Amino acid sequence: DFLHALDNDIKPAFGAAQEMLENLLARGIINWGPPVTELLEDGMLSVQQAKATESSGLVSVLIEGAPNSGKSALAANLAQLSDFPFVKVCSPEDMVGFTESAKCLHIRKIFDDAYRSTLSCIVVDNVERLLDYGPIGPRYSNLTLQALLVLLKKQPPKGRKLLILCTSSRRDVLEEMEMLSAFTSVLHVSNLSTPENVLAVLDDSDLFSPEELQSIARKMAGKRLCIGIKKLLALIDMIRQSEPHQRVIKFLSKMEEEGGLEMDRVQGH
Amino acid sequence: DFLHALDNDIKPAFGAAQEMLENLLARGIINWGPPVTELLEDGMLSVQQAKATESSGLVSVLIEGAPNSGKSALAANLAQLSDFPFVKVCSPEDMVGFTESAKCLHIRKIFDDAYRSTLSCIVVDNVERLLDYGPIGPRYSNLTLQALLVLLKKQPPKGRKLLILCTSSRRDVLEEMEMLSAFTSVLHVSNLSTPENVLAVLDDSDLFSPEELQSIARKMAGKRLCIGIKKLLALIDMIRQSEPHQRVIKFLSKMEEEGGLEMDRVQGH
Amino acid sequence: DFLHALDNDIKPAFGAAQEMLENLLARGIINWGPPVTELLEDGMLSVQQAKATESSGLVSVLIEGAPNSGKSALAANLAQLSDFPFVKVCSPEDMVGFTESAKCLHIRKIFDDAYRSTLSCIVVDNVERLLDYGPIGPRYSNLTLQALLVLLKKQPPKGRKLLILCTSSRRDVLEEMEMLSAFTSVLHVSNLSTPENVLAVLDDSDLFSPEELQSIARKMAGKRLCIGIKKLLALIDMIRQSEPHQRVIKFLSKMEEEGGLEMDRVQGH
Amino acid sequence: DFLHALDNDIKPAFGAAQEMLENLLARGIINWGPPVTELLEDGMLSVQQAKATESSGLVSVLIEGAPNSGKSALAANLAQLSDFPFVKVCSPEDMVGFTESAKCLHIRKIFDDAYRSTLSCIVVDNVERLLDYGPIGPRYSNLTLQALLVLLKKQPPKGRKLLILCTSSRRDVLEEMEMLSAFTSVLHVSNLSTPENVLAVLDDSDLFSPEELQSIARKMAGKRLCIGIKKLLALIDMIRQSEPHQRVIKFLSKMEEEGGLEMDRVQGH
Amino acid sequence: DFLHALDNDIKPAFGAAQEMLENLLARGIINWGPPVTELLEDGMLSVQQAKATESSGLVSVLIEGAPNSGKSALAANLAQLSDFPFVKVCSPEDMVGFTESAKCLHIRKIFDDAYRSTLSCIVVDNVERLLDYGPIGPRYSNLTLQALLVLLKKQPPKGRKLLILCTSSRRDVLEEMEMLSAFTSVLHVSNLSTPENVLAVLDDSDLFSPEELQSIARKMAGKRLCIGIKKLLALIDMIRQSEPHQRVIKFLSKMEEEGGLEMDRVQGH
Amino acid sequence: DFLHALDNDIKPAFGAAQEMLENLLARGIINWGPPVTELLEDGMLSVQQAKATESSGLVSVLIEGAPNSGKSALAANLAQLSDFPFVKVCSPEDMVGFTESAKCLHIRKIFDDAYRSTLSCIVVDNVERLLDYGPIGPRYSNLTLQALLVLLKKQPPKGRKLLILCTSSRRDVLEEMEMLSAFTSVLHVSNLSTPENVLAVLDDSDLFSPEELQSIARKMAGKRLCIGIKKLLALIDMIRQSEPHQRVIKFLSKMEEEGGLEMDRVQGH
Ligand SMILES: Nc1ncnc2c1ncn2[C@@H]1O[C@H](COP(=O)(O)OP(=O)(O)OP(=O)(O)O)[C@@H](O)[C@H]1O
Ligand SMILES: Nc1ncnc2c1ncn2[C@@H]1O[C@H](COP(=O)(O)OP(=O)(O)OP(=O)(O)O)[C@@H](O)[C@H]1O
Ligand SMILES: Nc1ncnc2c1ncn2[C@@H]1O[C@H](COP(=O)(O)OP(=O)(O)OP(=O)(O)O)[C@@H](O)[C@H]1O
Ligand SMILES: Nc1ncnc2c1ncn2[C@@H]1O[C@H](COP(=O)(O)OP(=O)(O)OP(=O)(O)O)[C@@H](O)[C@H]1O
Ligand SMILES: Nc1ncnc2c1ncn2[C@@H]1O[C@H](COP(=O)(O)OP(=O)(O)OP(=O)(O)O)[C@@H](O)[C@H]1O
Ligand SMILES: Nc1ncnc2c1ncn2[C@@H]1O[C@H](COP(=O)(O)OP(=O)(O)OP(=O)(O)O)[C@@H](O)[C@H]1O
Ligand SMILES: [Mg+2]
Ligand SMILES: [Mg+2]
Ligand SMILES: [Mg+2]
Ligand SMILES: [Mg+2]
Ligand SMILES: [Mg+2]
Ligand SMILES: [Mg+2]
Repeated sequence: DFLHALDNDIKPAFGAAQEMLENLLARGIINWGPPVTELLEDGMLSVQQAKATESSGLVSVLIEGAPNSGKSALAANLAQLSDFPFVKVCSPEDMVGFTESAKCLHIRKIFDDAYRSTLSCIVVDNVERLLDYGPIGPRYSNLTLQALLVLLKKQPPKGRKLLILCTSSRRDVLEEMEMLSAFTSVLHVSNLSTPENVLAVLDDSDLFSPEELQSIARKMAGKRLCIGIKKLLALIDMIRQSEPHQRVIKFLSKMEEEGGLEMDRVQGH
Repeated sequence: DFLHALDNDIKPAFGAAQEMLENLLARGIINWGPPVTELLEDGMLSVQQAKATESSGLVSVLIEGAPNSGKSALAANLAQLSDFPFVKVCSPEDMVGFTESAKCLHIRKIFDDAYRSTLSCIVVDNVERLLDYGPIGPRYSNLTLQALLVLLKKQPPKGRKLLILCTSSRRDVLEEMEMLSAFTSVLHVSNLSTPENVLAVLDDSDLFSPEELQSIARKMAGKRLCIGIKKLLALIDMIRQSEPHQRVIKFLSKMEEEGGLEMDRVQGH
Repeated sequence: DFLHALDNDIKPAFGAAQEMLENLLARGIINWGPPVTELLEDGMLSVQQAKATESSGLVSVLIEGAPNSGKSALAANLAQLSDFPFVKVCSPEDMVGFTESAKCLHIRKIFDDAYRSTLSCIVVDNVERLLDYGPIGPRYSNLTLQALLVLLKKQPPKGRKLLILCTSSRRDVLEEMEMLSAFTSVLHVSNLSTPENVLAVLDDSDLFSPEELQSIARKMAGKRLCIGIKKLLALIDMIRQSEPHQRVIKFLSKMEEEGGLEMDRVQGH
Repeated sequence: DFLHALDNDIKPAFGAAQEMLENLLARGIINWGPPVTELLEDGMLSVQQAKATESSGLVSVLIEGAPNSGKSALAANLAQLSDFPFVKVCSPEDMVGFTESAKCLHIRKIFDDAYRSTLSCIVVDNVERLLDYGPIGPRYSNLTLQALLVLLKKQPPKGRKLLILCTSSRRDVLEEMEMLSAFTSVLHVSNLSTPENVLAVLDDSDLFSPEELQSIARKMAGKRLCIGIKKLLALIDMIRQSEPHQRVIKFLSKMEEEGGLEMDRVQGH
Repeated sequence: DFLHALDNDIKPAFGAAQEMLENLLARGIINWGPPVTELLEDGMLSVQQAKATESSGLVSVLIEGAPNSGKSALAANLAQLSDFPFVKVCSPEDMVGFTESAKCLHIRKIFDDAYRSTLSCIVVDNVERLLDYGPIGPRYSNLTLQALLVLLKKQPPKGRKLLILCTSSRRDVLEEMEMLSAFTSVLHVSNLSTPENVLAVLDDSDLFSPEELQSIARKMAGKRLCIGIKKLLALIDMIRQSEPHQRVIKFLSKMEEEGGLEMDRVQGH
Repeated sequence: DFLHALDNDIKPAFGAAQEMLENLLARGIINWGPPVTELLEDGMLSVQQAKATESSGLVSVLIEGAPNSGKSALAANLAQLSDFPFVKVCSPEDMVGFTESAKCLHIRKIFDDAYRSTLSCIVVDNVERLLDYGPIGPRYSNLTLQALLVLLKKQPPKGRKLLILCTSSRRDVLEEMEMLSAFTSVLHVSNLSTPENVLAVLDDSDLFSPEELQSIARKMAGKRLCIGIKKLLALIDMIRQSEPHQRVIKFLSKMEEEGGLEMDRVQGH
């Protein structure tokens, strides 16, 4: 029947953590500035800690930042770099329309599987969505919250090591839910915030000629910037569809529209 | 039994996306002014972006405006113009009386089908109704909200392209629900706001003689106007039932009654 | 069993729309003044609109007014006058003790049946009761609200015509529920408000002699009045049980008690 | 099983309306003063109205007053006096622990049975308890409220007559629930409020000697009094257990304790 | 299975009211002062009233006081003293983890059994716990509240007598729930409040020598005291574990710690 | 199936209380200062009281303190030291994703088992998690709260002794839930608060050389400190991964970051 069919649609996804990580990294990691390097370094330190024999068997890291800032891709990247034999992604995308308790069972299953491996890494993507957080009310699944609060602190069996990488764009909500104190460490993912950051990405995108890039650099010089890497990549996709000679001005005005650029007035060249 | 019978009533609707689009376009698209042209142009740009191979596999557009402003017809029009091989309409009209979870399964099924096609377009009509938004409380289906929040951001499998066209008359509610940041772009549908806009529609309707139209134009000159295209077409239907010699004055007074026309005093001719 | 038995009690009611209309019209329509004529004229205009081939296939009318003002009888009267081949009454009286979802299925069934007819008229009686509106809280059935919001706007299939006549004594509540914008037109049913209105009904009731009527007219002259037709007819029923010589004074004092008459002091004759 | 057993415990109660009325009237009706006579007269007028052929088929009366004021006994008394062939008591005592929907089905069954009789009388005892009204929140069964709101206004089939006698000690709550306008008339049951009222009951009880009664009368003269008949009868039961020579003073001090008597200081004789 | 097993664990408890009363009276009733005597006298008066043939068939008593003040033991004592042939204890301890409706069925069963006996006494222990009262919210089981509100007022069948003894440490909550007016009388259980009260208990406990008791009496003289009998007995248990020479000073400091004694400074001897 | 499999995963945990206690004590008990000694002494007094024959059969202790302060380890330690033949751990870790009622049944089962033993000790770990306490709302399982409120006060059968050791980091919440008065005694677990406390742990960890320890002691002298033992141990784990020459400074700056150390400015050495 219907439910059964859905279930089968999901099944294949289970064995395919590697593919899911690749999906999250669809556009790779562009090193657009120091915040990227620092986050990866800090993350790798936690990975080492999780492996060390003298340490406690559990290390849990929260990777938090604004929507579209690249959290999921960075978590996936760390999971790949960890080189742990067991990696699983626990994502709301696999639980669309699940009831609270189906969600909890699914999450629990992933952790139970991990406890059976010596070295495991679980990526828990988009925690606020797992919690069914609805801002009007607010509403959330207390069943799932309780499950996560316990699982984030539960030691794996003796001799096993577990690394948990969570992502969230609502650090404030997790704080209110008293979840923060459960993490071993918390890493912040920044939006791009300087013209240099943006130019590094444009450079990587092959959309503009060197002259156009210089013209953009001049226009953006000294402006306050704030845009997520995912938004910026989508904007570049869009500009690519428009007429070549309009691209620079369109790029700048769209940047402004998205709130990513603070300008007094964008002028044509 | 009863439920089974209902189910069969629904079934045929599934295969018939084309018919549903035509239904939404029952009275065609009258080009009553620049806002209509602009919205269609902007919409087509997103359609192109969705098709482009270099882009991300997902483009999602919100088409929002006042009740009766023509949102559903415009979304249907874009879906037809896209010429995508797979088009589905996800509409609350097909889910009357469904439980939250039946609704979610239905929505999910439509997306799962789309992921199997190379080029897919889904029209998600009347999002606030899908969410069971009830203004007293307020109340809404958090299960459906969570499903939509995930589905609007979920990349189709590698190599597949998906265009999502949503309509809503409660942009404010979607904003409060933190849904807006999930859209690639947001297009606003305007009500008719100038006498010229209205006259273009009257012209199209063959209800009044040229002299009558001139008389109406004189009466409306310089007035503030605000009426949705669907409301205006219904008003024209109504006036058509009344006595020919009363139509002009009746039209003007009904326009005023509907709040569509701000007059000091409507006078007979 | 029990439920089954109840179900059978209901069944016969289904085929018998005509009988239900007659029930609603138990005491006929007394033309007690201009508001009655006007409402029926306006209502008939909507009936014509619903039939016209050039028009949209859907016309929905809200008939609203104070409790006991005669809304249901007037809606039933319009439905009879429409002469539509398919007429159904959708009334909370047939759904006592139904769950939300049974209610929705029942309502949906009526609409689904109507969509199969070429010319259909549905009387949706007492909308706030259908919605299970409970003023403490307030509470209401969001499932039913969503169903009605969709059904009131859903076009019947191509070539079919549907006229929906709703009644409600809580226009304010429907407004808060954002239901009002779904109606093609809204008609207000007035209470009786002048001595002439009341005298027209008394005249019709054969309770008082001409002299008594004159005496009542004198007593009521210049007073503010506000009473629903159903309340007035019940009051006449009651007075009929009392001693003939006490009737005039009892009628006047009961009118005052019901709040239907504002007097300084009722005096015996 | 358990439920089945309970069900059988209830069954016999069904056929035994007469016995239930007698239970409610366990201690008869003591005519302690004019409020008793007036209420019975007014009640009988409604009984006549319910029987009259020219009247509407439905008369519904609310009998409301403070807890312990004698509402249920008076309603039972009117039902007996009506001499209707079909009488049923709809009481929360028969629905202890029922779910909302079981309650509604039970109520509905009683009404459905009544509609089959030509002349029916239903006593709906303790409406706020039927509604599961819990003052903290407040909470109530909206399902039952909706059922009652409809049933109180639903005309019995053509040619049938139905008299509904409801009791409640929370008129304010029924008002908030917009139930009051559904009643054809509302009768208020008073507490005893004068020394004469109380002495009439004491006289009836054979507890005190004539001298003692006189002494009590002297002590109570000019005091404000307010006590329900049921409370007063219980108090008399209690005093009967104490030492004869202490009874007068104990009676007076207990009256004061219950708040039924406002004294400066009760002194022994 | 599991539930079945639990059920069997409970079963034996049913027939064993006598044992349950003894459990509640584990440490007997120490007559520590006048409040104890008075409560037992007042209670016995209600027991007599319940037995008397002329009285109403129902007497219900609320025994209320602070936590640990001895309510349950006193209720059990009265039930034993009543010498009624049928005695049942209705205690939340037998319903741990029951759903609302299982709780209601259990309670109802006890009352239904009692109605079959000529002279019955039911101890309803810890009413606020039966109601699942949770102070955050607050929350409570409205189903159980409604059941109790009805059962506390429901007359047993003709010729049967029922005495209900309820205990509660939340008189304020029962008042808010409008439960108080349902009781025939309300008895207050006091905490120990004078040095004499406490010394009577210490005397009974054989913990201290006469000299130690005198020393304690001197230290406590003139202090305000407030401690429940259960708390005091637990404190004595604890002191018994400590070194003999430290007991007096430890007793006094623990009394203070518990808030049971108001001292300026406890000094060693 | 799935649920069955989960169930089997849990089963083995049941018989293995000893292993669970060891898990809780993974890193032993480091005696870092007087608060540790005092808590263990006070705890042992309650253990003795629970064993004593003259005492009541029930002793319940709450062990409360900040998150990560070592509550669970200390409770486990007391349970081991008690040397009771029956020891069970009741932990939310064994009930992830359980429904309210499954949770209650599980808890109840543990207590029912204990009642069958002569000398039993139950460790109820992390009470606020057992109660599903969610701070947004707030939300909690009232079913579980009611079960615990009853079980914490329920005497074991005659002749049986039961010691209950609960842990919680939300004393305030338990207080609001009126749970505190149910405990025989309440013990507070402190965070480390002096440089000496911290140095005792560092000493135990073999991470720093004596010179480094002296340098740390100098830097921390006179500062306010507040860190839980679990957090401090995790921090030591982390520092162990970094370069040896950076450890002292990294330790001090991480202490500050965690809020565990209040410094004006940490300077390199
Ligand atoms: N330096 C970078 N950091 C992160 N992502 C990058 C970077 N460079 C390129 N990307 C690409 O940007 C996209 C980031 O999207 P991602 O889904 O990770 O963002 P997110 O913050 O998780 O968004 P959301 O708030 O919707 O969860 C990915 O496709 C990734 O391949
Ligand atoms: N320029 C136009 N734009 C949109 N619709 C038009 C236009 N011209 C004519 N129409 C017709 O007007 C009607 C618009 O109704 P539509 O249902 O699309 O409005 P809506 O905004 O979706 O209403 P609702 O708020 O009820 O969802 C359609 O029948 C459509 O064929
Ligand atoms: N002019 C009139 N308009 C309406 N009803 C009339 C008129 N004259 C007589 N009646 C009679 O008055 C009664 C009106 O009752 P009706 O149930 O329609 O009122 P209502 O407003 O629907 O009441 P409610 O608020 O309870 O739904 C009917 O019996 C009808 O036959
Ligand atoms: N004049 C009287 N009016 C009413 N009841 C009377 C009168 N005289 C004696 N009684 C007796 O007093 C008792 C009144 O109790 P009843 O249960 O009717 O009160 P009630 O107001 O319904 O109480 P509650 O608020 O608990 O529902 C009955 O036993 C009745 O027989
Ligand atoms: N005078 C007395 N009154 C009551 N109980 C006494 C008295 N003397 C000794 N006791 C003993 O004190 C204990 C009182 O405990 P009990 O459970 O009755 O208190 P409680 O007020 O019901 O507590 P809780 O608030 O927890 O329900 C019993 O063990 C009882 O045997
Ligand atoms: N003196 C001590 N007291 C408590 N725990 C200690 C002590 N010394 C070392 N430890 C170790 O510290 C850890 C304390 O962690 P534990 O889980 O008991 O803390 P907790 O307060 O229960 O944390 P949570 O708030 O997460 O429940 C354990 O691994 C324990 O072995
Ligand atoms: Mg993400
Ligand atoms: Mg639309
Ligand atoms: Mg009506
Ligand atoms: Mg009553
Ligand atoms: Mg007790
Ligand atoms: Mg712990």
